[in-house]
Amino acid sequence: MEEAAIYHQPCSMFAYPYDRKTFHLRIRTKKGDIRSVVCFFGDPYENHKNENGRIVPALNQKDMRLTAQTELHDYWFTEVALPFYRLHYAFVLTSVQDETIFYGDRGMMQDSALSFSFSENFFKYPYIHENDCFKAPDWVKKTVWYQIFPERFANGNPAISPVQTLPWGSKDPGRDDFFGGDLQGIIDHLDYLQNLGINGIYLTPIFTAPTNHKYDTLDYFSVDPHFGDKEVLRTLIKQAHKRSIRVMLDAVFNHIGSTSMQWQDVIRHGENSRYKDWFYIRSFPVQEGENGNIEGQTTLSYDTFAFTPKMPKLNTENQEVRDYLLRIALYWIKEFDIDGWRLDVANEVDGQFWRAFHQAVIGEKSDCYIVGEIWHNAWNWLQGDMFHSVMNYPLSQTIIDYFIENKLKATQAVSAINAHYMNYQAQVSEVAFNLLDSHDTARILTKARGDKQKVRLALAFLFSQTGSPCIYYGTEVGMDGANDPLCRKCMIWDKEKQDLEMMAFVKKIIRLRKDNQPVLTYGRLDWLIVDNAKDLLCFRRVYQDRTLYFFFNHGNNDQTLSLDESNVLLFDLWNDYRVDGTNLFVPCQQFRIFAEA
Amino acid sequence: MEEAAIYHQPCSMFAYPYDRKTFHLRIRTKKGDIRSVVCFFGDPYENHKNENGRIVPALNQKDMRLTAQTELHDYWFTEVALPFYRLHYAFVLTSVQDETIFYGDRGMMQDSALSFSFSENFFKYPYIHENDCFKAPDWVKKTVWYQIFPERFANGNPAISPVQTLPWGSKDPGRDDFFGGDLQGIIDHLDYLQNLGINGIYLTPIFTAPTNHKYDTLDYFSVDPHFGDKEVLRTLIKQAHKRSIRVMLDAVFNHIGSTSMQWQDVIRHGENSRYKDWFYIRSFPVQEGENGNIEGQTTLSYDTFAFTPKMPKLNTENQEVRDYLLRIALYWIKEFDIDGWRLDVANEVDGQFWRAFHQAVIGEKSDCYIVGEIWHNAWNWLQGDMFHSVMNYPLSQTIIDYFIENKLKATQAVSAINAHYMNYQAQVSEVAFNLLDSHDTARILTKARGDKQKVRLALAFLFSQTGSPCIYYGTEVGMDGANDPLCRKCMIWDKEKQDLEMMAFVKKIIRLRKDNQPVLTYGRLDWLIVDNAKDLLCFRRVYQDRTLYFFFNHGNNDQTLSLDESNVLLFDLWNDYRVDGTNLFVPCQQFRIFAEA
Repeated sequence: MEEAAIYHQPCSMFAYPYDRKTFHLRIRTKKGDIRSVVCFFGDPYENHKNENGRIVPALNQKDMRLTAQTELHDYWFTEVALPFYRLHYAFVLTSVQDETIFYGDRGMMQDSALSFSFSENFFKYPYIHENDCFKAPDWVKKTVWYQIFPERFANGNPAISPVQTLPWGSKDPGRDDFFGGDLQGIIDHLDYLQNLGINGIYLTPIFTAPTNHKYDTLDYFSVDPHFGDKEVLRTLIKQAHKRSIRVMLDAVFNHIGSTSMQWQDVIRHGENSRYKDWFYIRSFPVQEGENGNIEGQTTLSYDTFAFTPKMPKLNTENQEVRDYLLRIALYWIKEFDIDGWRLDVANEVDGQFWRAFHQAVIGEKSDCYIVGEIWHNAWNWLQGDMFHSVMNYPLSQTIIDYFIENKLKATQAVSAINAHYMNYQAQVSEVAFNLLDSHDTARILTKARGDKQKVRLALAFLFSQTGSPCIYYGTEVGMDGANDPLCRKCMIWDKEKQDLEMMAFVKKIIRLRKDNQPVLTYGRLDWLIVDNAKDLLCFRRVYQDRTLYFFFNHGNNDQTLSLDESNVLLFDLWNDYRVDGTNLFVPCQQFRIFAEA
Repeated sequence: MEEAAIYHQPCSMFAYPYDRKTFHLRIRTKKGDIRSVVCFFGDPYENHKNENGRIVPALNQKDMRLTAQTELHDYWFTEVALPFYRLHYAFVLTSVQDETIFYGDRGMMQDSALSFSFSENFFKYPYIHENDCFKAPDWVKKTVWYQIFPERFANGNPAISPVQTLPWGSKDPGRDDFFGGDLQGIIDHLDYLQNLGINGIYLTPIFTAPTNHKYDTLDYFSVDPHFGDKEVLRTLIKQAHKRSIRVMLDAVFNHIGSTSMQWQDVIRHGENSRYKDWFYIRSFPVQEGENGNIEGQTTLSYDTFAFTPKMPKLNTENQEVRDYLLRIALYWIKEFDIDGWRLDVANEVDGQFWRAFHQAVIGEKSDCYIVGEIWHNAWNWLQGDMFHSVMNYPLSQTIIDYFIENKLKATQAVSAINAHYMNYQAQVSEVAFNLLDSHDTARILTKARGDKQKVRLALAFLFSQTGSPCIYYGTEVGMDGANDPLCRKCMIWDKEKQDLEMMAFVKKIIRLRKDNQPVLTYGRLDWLIVDNAKDLLCFRRVYQDRTLYFFFNHGNNDQTLSLDESNVLLFDLWNDYRVDGTNLFVPCQQFRIFAEA
């Protein structure tokens, strides 16, 4: 047995309450090394007399299920019920060579009666409190998102466009161009969005700021005048809600714009500014161009986003700043009834601030969705006390590497996806903000070098996974675009230029997702075929009495496949016909989705 | 290379800020499998052009040091400096067979220029905030604790003793006996304690409660009348402070006593009690004896400590309860200037409560020490936002298993100790509350079946480890006692009956600890000899220009040992003589402590 590869950590994604009475347990072992894992568990204070008359822990036991495999590891899972909300537990592992060990809080020991006799040999989850459980808004599980970059979605009120506004779609956007998109433009297309089927809109920042992207906030309490005003925003949200579409705004709390009143005050008054402690300043002056404060240089005299003097970092450890930012967070919920906050550069803001933010926001609107912009492993932001989700770029990357850029073999892709799920509690994955692209990446069609079939496969796969998927505006009409600023082109409204086939596809995949939401949110994921030679993936999602089968033929040959369960009758959800499970035709570069009939 | 055994987790005890400019990195590999680990690190926003003209992350590199070994694993360590408080990093591991891999946020990949080219391949610690760092009071590092169970330490005021008080030390204590110990008794012996050399007192509960142990609080705002009153407590703390002795009190916030006004109100008024939401009640009535509420039974109709109807669990998720308990926490700091809180059954109280507790307590007294009673792996309570330490029973257990009960081989003991240090950030270990026994365990001398030399070895070892050691009252006079209630005997004040040899030993080991505090707090721990056949441990502690050598000969033969560094001159700190490092005599069942001369 490769004991060195066995991993479990109490109070982590390996051991967490799913709800107050249900506890999830996972353990990681070397791939192929372990034949079975049995979990022994009980209430730490419940004892009984064993056959030798000795008082020992009273235990239940459950076989653990092999729930995920990566290239290196097997992950085993079980869930246990806790009548008194208290738990201690240990594992007995049996290797393929029939060695067994007992594994608990004091490490690995012999699988003997003695090991079972002492409560201190068991891992503990001492008591489940409701408020220590990860809880996310239920509506997110039913949501398909649509991300809008407002300056480029639609110009609904030319009267408020910046003077330098270019004609809509007249050129590929440069970094500093304006095309006049605004909130009225979004209102004007709510019917379009409803018809597409999406039921959540994520807007990149709309507060007053000089740039077209508005990540350099000048005033968090006003709508940018080129985008509209508070009344237009109110109308937008009301109209969206009338259509059962939720609205999430984007808050930039890591840094502020250098044109803000607060930073301007520091520039003007230096050491004497009443805002000097709102920032992390090493030396004065802080004026751009002076004292080493040059774009991109490591000589900056104050902390910033990246090395950008235009974005001074806010000191969120300062009580005044905290109060100010929390007031903003609550203002837009109270006054405008927004449904979520996406938080820019969330990983560079302190955890204490986000905990206070979470409590304030959830205190005001208990089902507000909180999404941090974090690109990397974010386990410690997703413990239930800060965010509900992060921008799920690691999943995007795996889908792109496999379906779009052919950088991964099927087994590697599955390994990465499984590892990803194992990184987080199940509840986190259930409300993950899943996406293929955004204003911060090249568009998926460009990554696919224009191959629309690849995009369809990637989208279908994204929609088959646990979490709430997001369409970046324009994907549905076949828009392309390389990295920023080219991924921020004007939305194509000219029907002649829209890819209506892609639109039909996106509508259909959204419909299918909504029709099958519970199994796609809660369903177990069983990989049935992972074939590198054929470049083929097949998996099953199972929840209660619903079973879906997904086949992704990413290879160059058509395949006729058969399920092990030979006499299962299936229904092709995409093409609307019945088929028997022994004779499933999946053409090359196509996918199929079947439901058990 | 056994890749499956490699483990690193960002934002954990494997990757944490030691202070704002110093970051600690650890990685775990299979024992003996890896020859070297190099850490590559930099600021995530700092790039440069590589030889091919490509923009890639600008990196520094550091060789990692093999810092600890367990029976299964090697742990590698390095610390890196962060000028901009931001970090990304990855590891390159080379196996003993000369295979190399690159390991970062996207898993393991080839050690190639390509892997180094993308920031997303690197683990992240996005930004170090002062308030996300674990910070503990510096004085704790210099403290030797003395735990007092007040009912049994000394009777300074017989006038307030309970009517049923038994003559001091007249019998072994039964579960419900009273002997009249009180706060005046402690005041009377402050000179004794000062002379012993301790500089911190931990008192088990002193608030009004019916039992002798007082873990069933009746009133958190009063001193138990059999122990004294607020004025006596004030005097005790003032007198202790005058002698540079700190005082830590014991708070029982997991549950309250059933005689408390609040629980009595619930018994009386049931559903209509204004305190009913202060508890977790499943059904009424809650009177002991009724509705399944029987000691030790799993039929209780409300949550309790263990299955004890006399200790109803407090609902710390309820805002009123939180406010009440926080008021208590601050009251005794503000009014009496206590220096620490030890928190009973801390693991069964919700994390949100402890975070609020931490902020309130540290807000009131920034160097207040917070110690949770947790017996198991407590990593998630020791992240800097809840406790500074837990009762470090896992270390006690290893010392006892090895030195007292001969259950472990030398290699197993060292493995357990190393694993223990690797469980926590370095700062946590620096202020760990280390002990051999307490009111909740059998006394160390009883565990040693009266073998005082074993006790001396165990104490000397405890004092050689990182953390602040605690003496349980009476250890210094040779007191014994099995599990509760026998570990709570009356303190022996009769000089005839005191073991004065043990007292001299304890004084000497305390003196030695205080004289060498920095190296014992911060010093690297290098194991030099771990010999199962000879039953011998030798290690070195190194900090700045101070080096100490510890030899523990737990075997039955005298040993003459030699250090590898042959011409080192040593000074025997215990016996006060010079010796050369090639000729170190360590008699059986003895220890030696040398300083590099």
